[in-house]
Amino acid sequence: MSLMDHMVAAASNWLETDSDSKALARPVNWFRQKSGYAFVNRLVGSAIPFAPRNRFRVEEVKAGYVRASIALKGNKNHFGSLYAGAYFLVAEIPGGVLALFDLGPAYVPILKEMTLEFLQPANSDVTVEMTLAPDVLDTVRLEADETGRAAFSLEGALTDSEGQVVARSVAHYRVRKRAAV
Amino acid sequence: MSLMDHMVAAASNWLETDSDSKALARPVNWFRQKSGYAFVNRLVGSAIPFAPRNRFRVEEVKAGYVRASIALKGNKNHFGSLYAGAYFLVAEIPGGVLALFDLGPAYVPILKEMTLEFLQPANSDVTVEMTLAPDVLDTVRLEADETGRAAFSLEGALTDSEGQVVARSVAHYRVRKRAAV
Repeated sequence: MSLMDHMVAAASNWLETDSDSKALARPVNWFRQKSGYAFVNRLVGSAIPFAPRNRFRVEEVKAGYVRASIALKGNKNHFGSLYAGAYFLVAEIPGGVLALFDLGPAYVPILKEMTLEFLQPANSDVTVEMTLAPDVLDTVRLEADETGRAAFSLEGALTDSEGQVVARSVAHYRVRKRAAV
Repeated sequence: MSLMDHMVAAASNWLETDSDSKALARPVNWFRQKSGYAFVNRLVGSAIPFAPRNRFRVEEVKAGYVRASIALKGNKNHFGSLYAGAYFLVAEIPGGVLALFDLGPAYVPILKEMTLEFLQPANSDVTVEMTLAPDVLDTVRLEADETGRAAFSLEGALTDSEGQVVARSVAHYRVRKRAAV
């Protein structure tokens, strides 16, 4: 399936309101109307309201790649820097976004373990880039198709607005193949 | 210092609005007016707005012990179970609460690493209990007093409303002693 097919299929699964359904009758038009990654962020927010509520944002998605950010605004701790839970959020959601857009909605990612190492306080928004190599994607797809299950890991470097690495994340996901989508 | 002294000192550091300042002029009265742990939760929310915004709640604090919960409401993922980021929140804040109430505001805890292992989905609110043994507290206090720094680790078992363990957490904190409070 193409990326657009995935997005529409995912949207069909996730979005539930009347206005969303109407918009999906003409998904490409709707997509064109929205600037940048508003559609992707709408999807994420429909799946996990926790994400937009805490100012998580997908900034770019392409094959095997996601860039996402979390705002400092609203997420400060009592030192005025970014609260640890916001680090977790920006490190975690990209795994689901990658799985959705690179594997498609038939492959369901389930987070099994996440380790976050906090290196220094962040006094700005924080960005993370994550990649899944084509051979990893192929392996996950093959294993899940054959056995119903697979696994992948994602490592991320979280950077502040000056490009300094403020934290590192390692996430282990399992993938379950859905019988039918 | 007594627990109440710690709370008032902490509140003085944390709370910033006019109404809070007025309330603190008579902290004991204010404390008495508030039922249960509203005061503690107000403190947490003043330090880290992320916590109450995502329905984190301290339920009990006593020497070396904290019990806290996170609501399923508002925190669901697209499977209808608790989103992973909510697990992180309920596993992380208790370390700060324990440090504040057992060590006092002169000892500043800094999260260095957190690992969460997700065992099964939670379809209810999730609760965690965490304890710091008296000898650990003594060691932290002594080391921080002598060197300005110390460290402690906290392990937590996160349980659903039926008492099933849905996740396990291991958090490593460093402690910095403030020059003056």
